[in-house]
Amino acid sequence: MTPRPGTLLGRTVGRVRPVGNALTPAVRARLDSLTKPPGSLGRLEELALQLARIQDTVKPRVDTRAVLVFAADHGVTAEGVSAFPSEVTAQMVLNFLRGGAAINVLARHAGARLTVVDVGVDHDFSAPRPGLMVDKVRRGTASIAQGPAMTRAQATHALEAGIRAAEATIGDGLALLATGDMGIGNTTPSAAITACFTGRPAAEVTGRGTGVSDDVLARKVAAVEQALAVNTPDPADPLGVLAAVGGLEIAAIAGAILAAAAHRVPVLVDGFISTAGALVAQGLCPDAAGYLIAGHCSAERGHRAALAHLGLTPLLDLDLRLGEGTGAVLAMHLAEAAVRLLDEMATFTTAGVSEGAP
Amino acid sequence: MTPRPGTLLGRTVGRVRPVGNALTPAVRARLDSLTKPPGSLGRLEELALQLARIQDTVKPRVDTRAVLVFAADHGVTAEGVSAFPSEVTAQMVLNFLRGGAAINVLARHAGARLTVVDVGVDHDFSAPRPGLMVDKVRRGTASIAQGPAMTRAQATHALEAGIRAAEATIGDGLALLATGDMGIGNTTPSAAITACFTGRPAAEVTGRGTGVSDDVLARKVAAVEQALAVNTPDPADPLGVLAAVGGLEIAAIAGAILAAAAHRVPVLVDGFISTAGALVAQGLCPDAAGYLIAGHCSAERGHRAALAHLGLTPLLDLDLRLGEGTGAVLAMHLAEAAVRLLDEMATFTTAGVSEGAP
Repeated sequence: MTPRPGTLLGRTVGRVRPVGNALTPAVRARLDSLTKPPGSLGRLEELALQLARIQDTVKPRVDTRAVLVFAADHGVTAEGVSAFPSEVTAQMVLNFLRGGAAINVLARHAGARLTVVDVGVDHDFSAPRPGLMVDKVRRGTASIAQGPAMTRAQATHALEAGIRAAEATIGDGLALLATGDMGIGNTTPSAAITACFTGRPAAEVTGRGTGVSDDVLARKVAAVEQALAVNTPDPADPLGVLAAVGGLEIAAIAGAILAAAAHRVPVLVDGFISTAGALVAQGLCPDAAGYLIAGHCSAERGHRAALAHLGLTPLLDLDLRLGEGTGAVLAMHLAEAAVRLLDEMATFTTAGVSEGAP
Repeated sequence: MTPRPGTLLGRTVGRVRPVGNALTPAVRARLDSLTKPPGSLGRLEELALQLARIQDTVKPRVDTRAVLVFAADHGVTAEGVSAFPSEVTAQMVLNFLRGGAAINVLARHAGARLTVVDVGVDHDFSAPRPGLMVDKVRRGTASIAQGPAMTRAQATHALEAGIRAAEATIGDGLALLATGDMGIGNTTPSAAITACFTGRPAAEVTGRGTGVSDDVLARKVAAVEQALAVNTPDPADPLGVLAAVGGLEIAAIAGAILAAAAHRVPVLVDGFISTAGALVAQGLCPDAAGYLIAGHCSAERGHRAALAHLGLTPLLDLDLRLGEGTGAVLAMHLAEAAVRLLDEMATFTTAGVSEGAP
């Protein structure tokens, strides 16, 4: 399915170009000229190369950074799939706005601007508040175990809310974007999306989320199986997958990824929920995958399968399972290390160091 | 073997106390009160706890950071075990002093003060230079494939050079120390030390170092086997292991670790060479191991076995194989994230967020 060209979604997808290879020889030559054995900086060299290719420059930069945390509620919580009540979604949004959540601490630490985007929280954040964008599609999804999460029009609206938020954040020069999520219950639709795109059984991609018991986990696997049986989502129709078994924040994350790719901005993807969004983005626009960097591998079951489907190798593996964008902003440090090494190291010639002969 | 009490080495080992568990319940209670599912910050929670236990406070800090890069030469290069000529050790020391090496870039990025310590480079850095300490034991070791690397007295001198450098760096309040190395050929003695302490065959713990060919790797394995056969080092005599198959910078790293442990300063250990030093430090003083944090897992064969022997799980795994302390200073960011999360996050009570029931 190709999005209609006249819409914001269609225009955004239409702008995405494949990440090119033209600069690869120049960047590799520069990396090999630096005072270190060739390749000895491992993944940091590959990361520097990817950033250079995405930004189409031999001097990539990551000096302006932002994280978008998309928030929404999930009707599937009615099936008893989460350790926390739905009201926590809104409470955590307020916690984000007061600066007290893990993502606030880590975004400050990473030097990243944080914006929370309400695309579907079951609460009215009436007054304008700094750091909050409201582009609400509906107050939470319907239960995916009983029928579709939302209509196709609402899925499009949520995707476009993500595009709008990303474009507002990118402005005229963001260097690095991270995605994050808040939504009690959202590992359940993420598992359904992952099962749909990877073809794996529900039990293989459904995990404990915020830390549920064996009983709740069994209910959760059953809910994912039921969601797939009731809705029969088709991976060839990514918008239909979102409408059937998605989440509003997951759709918005997919939209933000598409917008970043359209603007040649690298995107650090967080954990399981953000990666579900990335699966949708890749489904809508395969070339968008080249703009993705996996910040970390979550402890959530199913994340590794989703990353593998996207061809991504995560930078960090710290048993995180919090979401919010925490694993993505933690990896910003490595992106900065990579570009600084490329830019600041001396070469064998300028430093007067003898080169080796393997 | 217990070092003699009257010596600097003996006094330092005598000062090391086991890392205590008294604060563990308080730190875990604080971590569980923060607005996140219990345990959802994974390794960062464990790291915060370890830093709290080492520093004996519920508010650990990592605000003052330093990396010590110990440099020395290795007689075993005469066996043709390295891709780079020995002269590169001194050239790289000069590169460090001019700020052009990978460790300079990453230390700046990490906000860590860098000091290079010449404990055995085959070159005279005659004039005093900022950022360089000279505490030279001898100009390089003898070839371990032919006999002992050095005398026991020289091994003690090198250990004590590491202690002196660490104590000068710790001063009256360093919060976090990292170790690094420079020494062409030093993966060979590190492999011999690792084989000795872990009991693994040479071929299992000898890798390609800076990137040698199959032929050179075969020579290197043979050199390690010969070093073990000629010197028959005994893991129950760690000073003897150093004298037999060690390196001067490896001994100094072991000394720096002992000094940090004696002063309750956490030590981020870098890759294969630093971990060989940590094996010696643990051999001399088993309680020192509690002060160690493995910065990363190197791509060098044998590193994982050495880490496992120490009971350490590395924070990063980025296919680095450069040494210099690069993997250790990269992980400082994670240590800072861990202590900031512990300190800055809101609690469920203060944020008005409902707690979950698993």
